[in-house]
Amino acid sequence: MRRVCVVITARASYARVKSALAAIRDHPELELQLVVGASAILDRYGDVSTRITADGFEIAQRVYMVIEGENLVTSAKSTGLGLIELATVFDNLRPDVVLTIADRYETLATAAAAAYSNIPLAHLQGGEVTGSIDEKVRHAVTKLADLHLVATERAAERVVRMGERPESVHVTGGPDIDLAAQVAAEPPLDYDPVEAFGGVGPHIALDDGYVVVVQHPVTTEYDRAFAHVTETLYAVEALSVPAIWFWPNVDAGSDATSKAIRVFREARRPERMHFFRNMPPEEFLRLLIGSRAVIGNSSVAIREGSFLGVPAVDVGDRQQGRERGANVVQAAYERSDIVRAAEAQIGHGRYAPELIYGDGKSGGRVAAVLSDAPLTIEKRLTY
Amino acid sequence: MRRVCVVITARASYARVKSALAAIRDHPELELQLVVGASAILDRYGDVSTRITADGFEIAQRVYMVIEGENLVTSAKSTGLGLIELATVFDNLRPDVVLTIADRYETLATAAAAAYSNIPLAHLQGGEVTGSIDEKVRHAVTKLADLHLVATERAAERVVRMGERPESVHVTGGPDIDLAAQVAAEPPLDYDPVEAFGGVGPHIALDDGYVVVVQHPVTTEYDRAFAHVTETLYAVEALSVPAIWFWPNVDAGSDATSKAIRVFREARRPERMHFFRNMPPEEFLRLLIGSRAVIGNSSVAIREGSFLGVPAVDVGDRQQGRERGANVVQAAYERSDIVRAAEAQIGHGRYAPELIYGDGKSGGRVAAVLSDAPLTIEKRLTY
Amino acid sequence: MRRVCVVITARASYARVKSALAAIRDHPELELQLVVGASAILDRYGDVSTRITADGFEIAQRVYMVIEGENLVTSAKSTGLGLIELATVFDNLRPDVVLTIADRYETLATAAAAAYSNIPLAHLQGGEVTGSIDEKVRHAVTKLADLHLVATERAAERVVRMGERPESVHVTGGPDIDLAAQVAAEPPLDYDPVEAFGGVGPHIALDDGYVVVVQHPVTTEYDRAFAHVTETLYAVEALSVPAIWFWPNVDAGSDATSKAIRVFREARRPERMHFFRNMPPEEFLRLLIGSRAVIGNSSVAIREGSFLGVPAVDVGDRQQGRERGANVVQAAYERSDIVRAAEAQIGHGRYAPELIYGDGKSGGRVAAVLSDAPLTIEKRLTY
Amino acid sequence: MRRVCVVITARASYARVKSALAAIRDHPELELQLVVGASAILDRYGDVSTRITADGFEIAQRVYMVIEGENLVTSAKSTGLGLIELATVFDNLRPDVVLTIADRYETLATAAAAAYSNIPLAHLQGGEVTGSIDEKVRHAVTKLADLHLVATERAAERVVRMGERPESVHVTGGPDIDLAAQVAAEPPLDYDPVEAFGGVGPHIALDDGYVVVVQHPVTTEYDRAFAHVTETLYAVEALSVPAIWFWPNVDAGSDATSKAIRVFREARRPERMHFFRNMPPEEFLRLLIGSRAVIGNSSVAIREGSFLGVPAVDVGDRQQGRERGANVVQAAYERSDIVRAAEAQIGHGRYAPELIYGDGKSGGRVAAVLSDAPLTIEKRLTY
Repeated sequence: MRRVCVVITARASYARVKSALAAIRDHPELELQLVVGASAILDRYGDVSTRITADGFEIAQRVYMVIEGENLVTSAKSTGLGLIELATVFDNLRPDVVLTIADRYETLATAAAAAYSNIPLAHLQGGEVTGSIDEKVRHAVTKLADLHLVATERAAERVVRMGERPESVHVTGGPDIDLAAQVAAEPPLDYDPVEAFGGVGPHIALDDGYVVVVQHPVTTEYDRAFAHVTETLYAVEALSVPAIWFWPNVDAGSDATSKAIRVFREARRPERMHFFRNMPPEEFLRLLIGSRAVIGNSSVAIREGSFLGVPAVDVGDRQQGRERGANVVQAAYERSDIVRAAEAQIGHGRYAPELIYGDGKSGGRVAAVLSDAPLTIEKRLTY
Repeated sequence: MRRVCVVITARASYARVKSALAAIRDHPELELQLVVGASAILDRYGDVSTRITADGFEIAQRVYMVIEGENLVTSAKSTGLGLIELATVFDNLRPDVVLTIADRYETLATAAAAAYSNIPLAHLQGGEVTGSIDEKVRHAVTKLADLHLVATERAAERVVRMGERPESVHVTGGPDIDLAAQVAAEPPLDYDPVEAFGGVGPHIALDDGYVVVVQHPVTTEYDRAFAHVTETLYAVEALSVPAIWFWPNVDAGSDATSKAIRVFREARRPERMHFFRNMPPEEFLRLLIGSRAVIGNSSVAIREGSFLGVPAVDVGDRQQGRERGANVVQAAYERSDIVRAAEAQIGHGRYAPELIYGDGKSGGRVAAVLSDAPLTIEKRLTY
Repeated sequence: MRRVCVVITARASYARVKSALAAIRDHPELELQLVVGASAILDRYGDVSTRITADGFEIAQRVYMVIEGENLVTSAKSTGLGLIELATVFDNLRPDVVLTIADRYETLATAAAAAYSNIPLAHLQGGEVTGSIDEKVRHAVTKLADLHLVATERAAERVVRMGERPESVHVTGGPDIDLAAQVAAEPPLDYDPVEAFGGVGPHIALDDGYVVVVQHPVTTEYDRAFAHVTETLYAVEALSVPAIWFWPNVDAGSDATSKAIRVFREARRPERMHFFRNMPPEEFLRLLIGSRAVIGNSSVAIREGSFLGVPAVDVGDRQQGRERGANVVQAAYERSDIVRAAEAQIGHGRYAPELIYGDGKSGGRVAAVLSDAPLTIEKRLTY
Repeated sequence: MRRVCVVITARASYARVKSALAAIRDHPELELQLVVGASAILDRYGDVSTRITADGFEIAQRVYMVIEGENLVTSAKSTGLGLIELATVFDNLRPDVVLTIADRYETLATAAAAAYSNIPLAHLQGGEVTGSIDEKVRHAVTKLADLHLVATERAAERVVRMGERPESVHVTGGPDIDLAAQVAAEPPLDYDPVEAFGGVGPHIALDDGYVVVVQHPVTTEYDRAFAHVTETLYAVEALSVPAIWFWPNVDAGSDATSKAIRVFREARRPERMHFFRNMPPEEFLRLLIGSRAVIGNSSVAIREGSFLGVPAVDVGDRQQGRERGANVVQAAYERSDIVRAAEAQIGHGRYAPELIYGDGKSGGRVAAVLSDAPLTIEKRLTY
């Protein structure tokens, strides 16, 4: 019986791991210890912990670790605080293996706390390539990790090339795709999301099509976050269909993003844009599936998007280097470029699904690896 | 004029960077900002900051970050505290580049604080291979770093294979070798170190030869630190020459090591072993040069040892995987094995020098790279 | 020349100290070192630091110390983080005396950091009596402080009775009253605050009178914060005049308060209530002076209110025990009681001014004491 | 059934609470939750947690919170870290009441963590008067506390005069006196403590009488700690009987004290002074009872000393203001003065016992109050 401690630190990370959580919880040889912290327990970011509990997962420990300020200094300090706090959590829970998800800045706290405590670390979604501080964090976590559960063959190849033992690398696919597959198999959107989830902005009709927008600040371009999101805001206002816009993660720059949205809304009082803070990942996916296109710089557009065939406009270079399918068109941080790309995608319609990031059955594979793989904390570069 | 912030967190790190510090300070295009913290400012670990000041370097900031306990949990927490503190330090000093040294656990705090603050990070002595948590930390720091100043060609090759851009990797050699070269060119030991530096244990005569012992606890083998050092203690007691033993770093396990030494000393009252806490790195090297052999698991035996041709016995697997010269013989954590290897080395005499880790002119190369290399914070895996 | 370090941690604290800041800055024997931290530098709480700079004060150091969560655990942790951070700040600034303001929970960090660093601590507005955790914090800070700058004779008497040396207690009056006096001497409100400061809620006409509402969560009644503010919301909706409502401080319970406001606004869509997050203290006072009554549990209603003669309804027991003038009527956490009290006050009209908390000339007295009083860190109970 | 969480942060605090711990553990209506942290779990300070466990108490949580450095800045930072850590501990343990002991600097973390978490706080040994930062901490803790368990009638009177409700103040006597009474009733020292507890320095014969020395650094006189302890060292060397000297607490200044001892030992190689780091409190008391006099600035000389009638020389002003019996003679920080006072006391012989600080039955009273007193977190100054 292995104790698997999964640490979730953000709304998006929950969707990325949910099917694996269920598989771990239900696996006869595994015991799930769920730790939820950082923005995942904050009201201001949609407190996904409420949803996690509603989904039937028991939370073993909640960890407050976000030092408010949403700038570069507080990113570093929050990660430091997380390391202090998670060391205690792991000391109390004594897991056999810790699972960390992807590449958010604060996941380095999870990784270091486990590695320094001599607890084997498993890393979900390593080996991918993007821009921003995420790129550094992701590969640093790979070097702290003992077990690699990657989404794609190319990711596996990259992890091995970085000097990890091939037998420690497992292509499980991404559990986020499982969720997408599940929702795609369910009936489409049949209720009014504005009524259901509130948000701000006018009530918009979705019947004649709409786009979904998710744009995160890029931390290595902190000062430009305000300008970048403003370009997207004006572009989306100019589109032929209304838009559903999702608030960003808590990150350096997210305050700038929030302010850009506020300034834009007051200046333009846009009539066809509604802003949501948060909703259950399934409902987000249902909205995505029903959309004419997804715009912004979220990995969802590329990962789930390729599986679902949703036309996507990837803005800027946050996702540069990430494997992508035919559904993605690139745009610069420039409103006319975004409008041009978006209208083309709106006109294109659905793409054929591609299984780049998973086939919808990743969760079980993740649990199987966590149950069966040898657990060790000693490793050396293979070359 | 670039501001170069160098962060020193341990006695050993100072020796590893000293010649580069001088070269940076004296470089017309560079301004040195020296931060000294962790065990490097603690009396209990020989407060190397006093020496640093005496050597003519100005300390811009001192950072207390060691949470006492010397166990795995406090290693993690100390690193977290360091991250909180160093984020403030960098925010105040606003360096153009931060230089971090090698692979001690708390250097991850330096690396993450710089990376998260969008400050280019230079890493000295990446690309090497050893055991223990150092291995994970070293390569994680590589993935957070933007500029790599490595000691050997093989290290350079490894960093590139890990996906770093070749143009960001510079073979400077190790500044630690500069110091060794300098001391080797000076007159040999001509004073009584016991008189000069105190320490505990009987006064021993060094005229007929002696060995030097440095054995650090291995953090991934925390529980065995006591047993391991005890083996070495008994082995050294049995040797044909007296021994000069150096206290370990502050690390998970160092309390166990200290206790093992105390227990051994009370039980055996060894007549030919003297214990030092600390001395200036030059004097340590002078002692090393004058020794018949160096025993333990310090990298000094392998790095400086190969340059100086000092016979070395490498005990256990802390240094496993590290490039080494002909001067190194391996021994298990087993007293008879250590005795056997040590006596063979004592009998062998000096080896021919090898320039594996540097040619004695690394400091200037480090300063030149820091002055001339393009500084950037954006990078992506090269594959 | 004494270096006086003033630490401001909240929007309200700035108004409480502003005239003293100016007097310290302009005093020939004093040098002002201004530290601004906690919610005072957070956008979400109106980032008063922008205003401070605009007012011509130079900020020596900004301190991020709010761990997000707005609950009891994060109050304690934020204070702990503040203590860690402020110890560094004081070590760098080396002030001759630190001035801390009133009784917010995080001010214990300021007080302890100064006391533990052997820096004399001056405390503004000790000796008052209220409810909630503020009561404990205020008197604990008194016991850590060496110099007491109190607002009223009764406060001075209480501080002396608590065992402080009489010569260390100075009745300066409250600098907050200076600001009220200044604004009272200026022309009344002659612009539209909704236009000027945004906020949420419908545009309301203020010409026929309005009330001002400020209601903070009471931390020792955390669970009831939601219920309490809901009572006030319904009461205010029922009044004969429209209302201007101010968002609460960042405190345990402030999330509950924010949520109560959101829920109320969605349920009732109130047509005569406008909500502000923040505005310059002078403009807040101008609004207060122009109002028919002030409702809630802010000390402003009692302190500035008595000086200005503004009719006030004090809701609940947060201010219980505080000295008050004729302008204050008490109400329970019960909407009908609040309505009854508020309508009586609206009908009453302006009260005669009372000089309980100051005469409008406190700032200069504070600076004079900081310049002339003997500074010491040794004290003992006087009995 | 009330959960009583007792937080022990130092070797000395354990002796001060031990009999109460036993009474709480054995009380049918109480559940003991024991938290041990700070120097009480550090090897370097004698790790009293080992003893606590050996005495049959179960430790619910261990808290690492000492940031190494032993200076004023690290005192503040350690307290801040303790506040961060203890907030989590209390959140997990959910005690009905927290008991904090006396006045060490880090106890402010215990007090604030409890108060900010809305947990009733009981304070043992408030209302006493001494010098140093302890004085500030002690009374600040009183103002954060809801229940006061004081040692003497005068202490009770002081706490009430500070504005605490008389019904919240209970004269229980000090549990430290219980331990003294117990040991006084047992057979005297009948073994060789040097053999039993090690320590450093020559083996000294105790048969013809000896003195006990305990001298803590005074934090508000940090720079003078070295000089002060040196005076005592030379004085003690000159006495007519040998001396047993106990190492100081971890405090700002303790490094200076340790260094003074080391310097003195190397310079003078004293033949009649033995230095202990730590021993069980009972054995310390047995040594004290058998001594001709106790010298230094520990409260033990005054508190337990008066009960046991041990002649005491109180050096300097650390204990200034503390109630004392006939057994105490004062001396300045001056070797000749210390010698004079000590020889007079050595010649005097045992004093008559005085029950100032307790009658030996305090532990049960403490438990009874914790079980029966109303628990509340709301209080206001009584005047």
